[in-house]
Amino acid sequence: MPKLLADDSVGIVESQRAQFTKPLTLECGKTLDAYDIVYETYGELNASASNAILICHALTGDHHAAGYYSVDDKKAGWWDSAIGPGKPIDTNMFFVVCINNLGGCRGSSGPNTINPETGKYWGPDFPIVTVRDWVKSQHRFMQWLEINAWCAVIGGSLGGMQVLQWSIDYPDLLKHAVVIAAAPKLSAQNIAFNEVARQSIMSDPDFCGGRYLEKNTVPRGGLMLARMLGHITYLSDDAMRDKFGRELREGKLNFGFDVDFQVESYLRYQGRSFVDRFDANTYLLMTKTLDYFDPAREYNDDLAAALKQTSAHFLVVSFTTDWRFAPERSHEIVKALLQAEKQLSYVEIEAKQGHDAFLIPIPHYMNIFSSHMKNIAAALT
Amino acid sequence: MPKLLADDSVGIVESQRAQFTKPLTLECGKTLDAYDIVYETYGELNASASNAILICHALTGDHHAAGYYSVDDKKAGWWDSAIGPGKPIDTNMFFVVCINNLGGCRGSSGPNTINPETGKYWGPDFPIVTVRDWVKSQHRFMQWLEINAWCAVIGGSLGGMQVLQWSIDYPDLLKHAVVIAAAPKLSAQNIAFNEVARQSIMSDPDFCGGRYLEKNTVPRGGLMLARMLGHITYLSDDAMRDKFGRELREGKLNFGFDVDFQVESYLRYQGRSFVDRFDANTYLLMTKTLDYFDPAREYNDDLAAALKQTSAHFLVVSFTTDWRFAPERSHEIVKALLQAEKQLSYVEIEAKQGHDAFLIPIPHYMNIFSSHMKNIAAALT
Repeated sequence: MPKLLADDSVGIVESQRAQFTKPLTLECGKTLDAYDIVYETYGELNASASNAILICHALTGDHHAAGYYSVDDKKAGWWDSAIGPGKPIDTNMFFVVCINNLGGCRGSSGPNTINPETGKYWGPDFPIVTVRDWVKSQHRFMQWLEINAWCAVIGGSLGGMQVLQWSIDYPDLLKHAVVIAAAPKLSAQNIAFNEVARQSIMSDPDFCGGRYLEKNTVPRGGLMLARMLGHITYLSDDAMRDKFGRELREGKLNFGFDVDFQVESYLRYQGRSFVDRFDANTYLLMTKTLDYFDPAREYNDDLAAALKQTSAHFLVVSFTTDWRFAPERSHEIVKALLQAEKQLSYVEIEAKQGHDAFLIPIPHYMNIFSSHMKNIAAALT
Repeated sequence: MPKLLADDSVGIVESQRAQFTKPLTLECGKTLDAYDIVYETYGELNASASNAILICHALTGDHHAAGYYSVDDKKAGWWDSAIGPGKPIDTNMFFVVCINNLGGCRGSSGPNTINPETGKYWGPDFPIVTVRDWVKSQHRFMQWLEINAWCAVIGGSLGGMQVLQWSIDYPDLLKHAVVIAAAPKLSAQNIAFNEVARQSIMSDPDFCGGRYLEKNTVPRGGLMLARMLGHITYLSDDAMRDKFGRELREGKLNFGFDVDFQVESYLRYQGRSFVDRFDANTYLLMTKTLDYFDPAREYNDDLAAALKQTSAHFLVVSFTTDWRFAPERSHEIVKALLQAEKQLSYVEIEAKQGHDAFLIPIPHYMNIFSSHMKNIAAALT
C-alpha cells in the first residue's frame, strides 16, 4: 500500500517528457537526430536555481526514483528509501531530477521506441551509448531545464559511474558528487557475467536478431536467465544464506528438475517478473555501456590524471559484502582522488546485503548520507 | 603433444568396462536393474592389495584422469598433473582407479546410454543419483575389483564430497581421505548458480524435454551458457584479471554485440568446446547431485556427528582465492573433524587461480600433496 500519508513520501508523481531536436553525436560515431527524454522531478527549484540534484539510475533503473503513480500503486520508485521529505535527499530542501537514460526502455528514446527514419521499432539498430554520451545528454537536459549547475549529482552502481563522468566532463557544473557502490571500470569477471547475460538473451530463438517487437514476441527465457544471473551478483553470499539458507520449498527433495530449494523459486520469480518490465535490447545495450566505461583509458590508465580536472567535493560509499563492486573498487576511486588532491569523504558501510545494499535504508548508511546532504543544504544560497 | 617420453607420464591408457547385473536401489527410491561402469587404472595392485587408491571426479570430469589415449592425443587426462610416476599420486607406488560416475556421459550408464527397458536413450528418465548413490556404486565396483579396502580415496570439488561420504558410509574401508577444494554442502549462492545453469539448458528449444538425442539434436546454446557461467565461478577475479584484464580483442571498442574483450572470446570458446564433450542431461543431473549433498542433514545438521563414525586419516586442502568453495567451507569440515576428534591435516594453499587451482600443479600444493602421499606409501604393507 502506498504510504501517501507518510510524512516522508513525495506522494503521487507524474512523468514528464522533453523532446530534443538538436542532433546528438555519440561516441560510436552515429548521430541521434532527435530524441525524447522522460523524467520526473520532486521538490521545488529555489529562486537562485542552486538546489537542483541529478539522480543517475543504474542498469535496470529508470526516471521513477520516488513516489507513487496512483493511490493504487503498490510499488514506490526505485530509490524511495533515500528521496523524500526528511530523507537523505530531502525534497524539502532540494529540487530532485531523475531521467530515463537514452537507450532505456521506460519512455526515453531507446530500442523499444520508434525510429523516426524507418517508422519501425529501433530494436537492435539503436546505437550503443556510453556513459559519456549519457552525461552529454543529461547536460543538454540540464540546459533545457534552465539549470546552470547541479548542486549535486548522485548515483549508485552504473549511476555512480555517470557521477564520475560528470565530474570529469563538466567539472564546473556540479558542486558535489556522490558515488555509491561503483567502480572506475568493470573487472574481467564483471564483463564475463555481462557476456553470459547477453549470450542468454541473444541465443533465445525469440530474440529474432533483436527485432522481436516487430515480430510481436519477446525473448522471455533469455531475459529471465539474464536477470536471474544478475540477481546472484547483486546479493551477497551472506544475504542469500540469511534469506534462504538451504530451505526446501516442500520440505523434501523432489529428485526432479522442478524447484527443490527456496532460492530457486525466488530466482525464477525475479526472472519472470523482470521480463514484464524490461526490454531485452536495452539490457544488451546497457551491459555494453557498463563494459565500456573506463574514464582513465584516455589518460594512460591513470585515474588520478582523469580526475585531476574535477572540482566537485566527493562522497564515495561502499558496502562490505558487495562483491559486484567491492569496497576495493571504491578504494581505487578514493586513492585516485587523494592522489589528485581532491576534497573527499569515504564511507565503508557494514552491510550484509551485497551490492543491493545501496538501495536499502540501512540506518548507518542513511544517517551518514543524511548528514552529508544536510551539510550541502546548509550551504545553499 | 603428448609427453609420452616424459618419465612422469602414465603413458598410453585404455578405458575398461565393468557390467553389473545386481539391481542398485537409489536414494530417490528407483532401482537400476543393470548398469555399466567405465573405468581406468594406472600402476599395479600389490600382492596384498593394500595400495589401491580411488580417485573421485568432479562435475565435468570422468574416468580418464591421467595419460593419453594415443600418440596423437593432444590432451592428457584431467588430473595428469597429479597422477603418474613420481607425481603426488605416484603410480610407482599406488594402484590408481578412476571411474566415470553413474549418470555421467563418458561410457558409464547415464542419460546418453540406452535404457534396456525401452531400447531408447535414457535421457531425462535416468534417475537423479546422489553422492551416497555414487559411493554405493563405487563400493560395489571395489568388490568387483576384489579390493578389500582403499588405501586412500581422493577427490577435489564434487570429488571431495564423495570422499567425505565414503568416510561416513564405509568408515572401515578407507585408510586415508583427501578432500580438496570441497564443502560440506552447497551454499544458497552455489545452488543459485546451478539453477541458472539448469534453466539455461532446459529453456533451450533444442532441449526437447531432455529427449534431444532421440530427435537427433543437442541443446548447444543452453549447455554453452551453463559452461560459460560455470567457468566464471571456477576462476578467481584475480585469475581473470591476470589472464585477460580488460584487453580488447581487436584493440578497439566495436560498439556492437560481437566480442570486444578477450574474456568474452575465451568464455565463448570454453562454452562451445564443452558442448562437444559433455551431455546436457548429465549436467542437469550432476548439478542436482551437488545441490543435494548434505551429509549432516540426517544428523540434525551436525557435521561433527556425521563424521563421528569415520576412521580415515584426513587431509583437507583449500585455495585462498577459491570463491566457489572458499577456504571457509573447508574450515567447516576441519572444525567438525576436530570436534569429532579425528586425525587430520589441513593446508590452505596461496593460489591465484580460484577453484580451478585444485587441477593446477602449483609447486607448494604439489609438494605438500607428494609429501603426504609418500608418508602413506611408506606405511604400505
